Amino acid sequence: MTRPEFRRDPLHNTWVVFAPERQRRPQDYAPLVLQETTLDPFAEGNERLTPPEVYAVRTEKSKPNEPGWRVRVVPNRYPAMRIEGTLDAVPNGLYDRLSGVGAHEVIIETPDGQTALEELPLPAISEIFSSYRERIIDLDKDQRFQHIYIFKNVGPSAGASLAHAHSQLVALPMVPPHIEGKLNRAREHYLLKQRSLFSDILHTERTDGSRMVAENDSYVLFCPFASRFPFEMAIFPKRHHSDFISCTSNELRDLAEILRFALLRLNTVLDRPGYNLLLHTAPLRRFHTERFASTRHDYCWHVEIVPRFNSLAGYEIGLGSYINTVYPEDAARALRGDVAT
Amino acid sequence: MTRPEFRRDPLHNTWVVFAPERQRRPQDYAPLVLQETTLDPFAEGNERLTPPEVYAVRTEKSKPNEPGWRVRVVPNRYPAMRIEGTLDAVPNGLYDRLSGVGAHEVIIETPDGQTALEELPLPAISEIFSSYRERIIDLDKDQRFQHIYIFKNVGPSAGASLAHAHSQLVALPMVPPHIEGKLNRAREHYLLKQRSLFSDILHTERTDGSRMVAENDSYVLFCPFASRFPFEMAIFPKRHHSDFISCTSNELRDLAEILRFALLRLNTVLDRPGYNLLLHTAPLRRFHTERFASTRHDYCWHVEIVPRFNSLAGYEIGLGSYINTVYPEDAARALRGDVAT
Repeated sequence: MTRPEFRRDPLHNTWVVFAPERQRRPQDYAPLVLQETTLDPFAEGNERLTPPEVYAVRTEKSKPNEPGWRVRVVPNRYPAMRIEGTLDAVPNGLYDRLSGVGAHEVIIETPDGQTALEELPLPAISEIFSSYRERIIDLDKDQRFQHIYIFKNVGPSAGASLAHAHSQLVALPMVPPHIEGKLNRAREHYLLKQRSLFSDILHTERTDGSRMVAENDSYVLFCPFASRFPFEMAIFPKRHHSDFISCTSNELRDLAEILRFALLRLNTVLDRPGYNLLLHTAPLRRFHTERFASTRHDYCWHVEIVPRFNSLAGYEIGLGSYINTVYPEDAARALRGDVAT
Repeated sequence: MTRPEFRRDPLHNTWVVFAPERQRRPQDYAPLVLQETTLDPFAEGNERLTPPEVYAVRTEKSKPNEPGWRVRVVPNRYPAMRIEGTLDAVPNGLYDRLSGVGAHEVIIETPDGQTALEELPLPAISEIFSSYRERIIDLDKDQRFQHIYIFKNVGPSAGASLAHAHSQLVALPMVPPHIEGKLNRAREHYLLKQRSLFSDILHTERTDGSRMVAENDSYVLFCPFASRFPFEMAIFPKRHHSDFISCTSNELRDLAEILRFALLRLNTVLDRPGYNLLLHTAPLRRFHTERFASTRHDYCWHVEIVPRFNSLAGYEIGLGSYINTVYPEDAARALRGDVAT
């Protein structure tokens, strides 16, 4: 079988996408080694090595798929889902199938393969976020998609296969059950208390202070009370909104500032660990109106920064629970710089 | 802070155990390297290197914590939870805390550090399973515990820190929400259909056949329809029962047989990949009667075998969903030996 397909497991309530085309990736059956020595497909001048770009931030005179860009968005060469095709949902006896339709894009964050996201100047980081926003706005027009999620893998421990700074976007034909769980819990909280769970967490963290790492005009950076990973951080916006695309230019610049601070502190305290960056925004607006009508009030977009040291083991895989060796209060103290580690 | 503690995240609905004592483990802030060269704490003759044993299968004349054992169960030297102390559940404003009380034991599967589980003779593998059963029966007496879970990490990619064949047992003061989700889905299925979801999956897989790998008198071995990982396998018992401890001696021998077959096939097809073995049994019986009254009919104990090739990345961590490059039908065909891979 070679066509991609989503399948639902009735016991775990997970949607798994089967993407046999990704099996050709060099690392799929071998321990992951970053491809430092081979040609960098994301470097300026190597544009022919990627599929044609779908978006770019470029100098005025430059042409698509040629040098002259600062941020470049291309379809993933080894996509987990395919952009072509109709969305067919079919039962399969006890099970459920859904055609493997979706977008899987790569946001190349800089033309230079040697520069990490946090080493870029603030305006360059803001341009990455405005590229996220443009891609979400564009993909939102596609009636097949219900949810867009953007993430970044840095280092082999976090699942990265290329060292050149990049993030990934997926547009999915369903809201993943894990995300629906978060939406539902936020909804329940709102219905009970007439307050957003996100606002309540933000209030609690600012009042308590022990897990706070930093804040600026638009954001709060803190280590969550029940952090799943050592030195996990969250960024919550002060202006409550369910959609990341609602961000103003100022808010994108402030996001660049606080994220860069978080990553630089992580590098200092822990010697450049691998990490995942997770950007959660509400399901697409078209879909809101049908199913998550009050998302605007009860759900808030947010960012998670998850350092990755060890492989998840049988405890985490089987229980969906975590063992964390560092209390968030201790992590926050070190990240703030109160103590040497 | 140094005391272990469970904390609940209100957005993710996860219980995270904070275990600062585990931070002393050598691998916690460095890439994991199996400790091949240092003294093997699980080898026969090195019994003094572990905490005193809580159970062992021994020759008649041998004494506790001395050589002469075939299976040995000891408390984990770096426990995620502590066996001592009362179970205090306290609110913490918006959040929830629970004292980090639990059992965390290691089942040393053989005195010989060079032998893998699947290389042991069948009676020796059966003795490992009967040790699991004995430990569950013993820990079930402890009124503080609600759920027992046994798992095995093999290889660095699966989170193993020692090469000597061993598995781990945790007794938890709560039913993890991920497990409660499985119990609830099984319950809903039963209430709707008056049939167990497990029986329905078993029926579907035996009828379809395309994902079947093997069966014997007591078990069916198959690749799940929505396998999260390439070459994932599940073992379902033919006799429906919620409790692993209900297994007869014959059933433990048959489990040894089918598990050994599964692991040997995995080694042949994929060159000894790292994997997790997950043993799921219903919450403790005392607890059933209060909360999961019909568990006996709607839930069935089962084993999952999860090969681990790459790190979980931002897609999996943030969405709780999976990208799998190998359809279970293709994996099952290779594991059955129908085709060369």
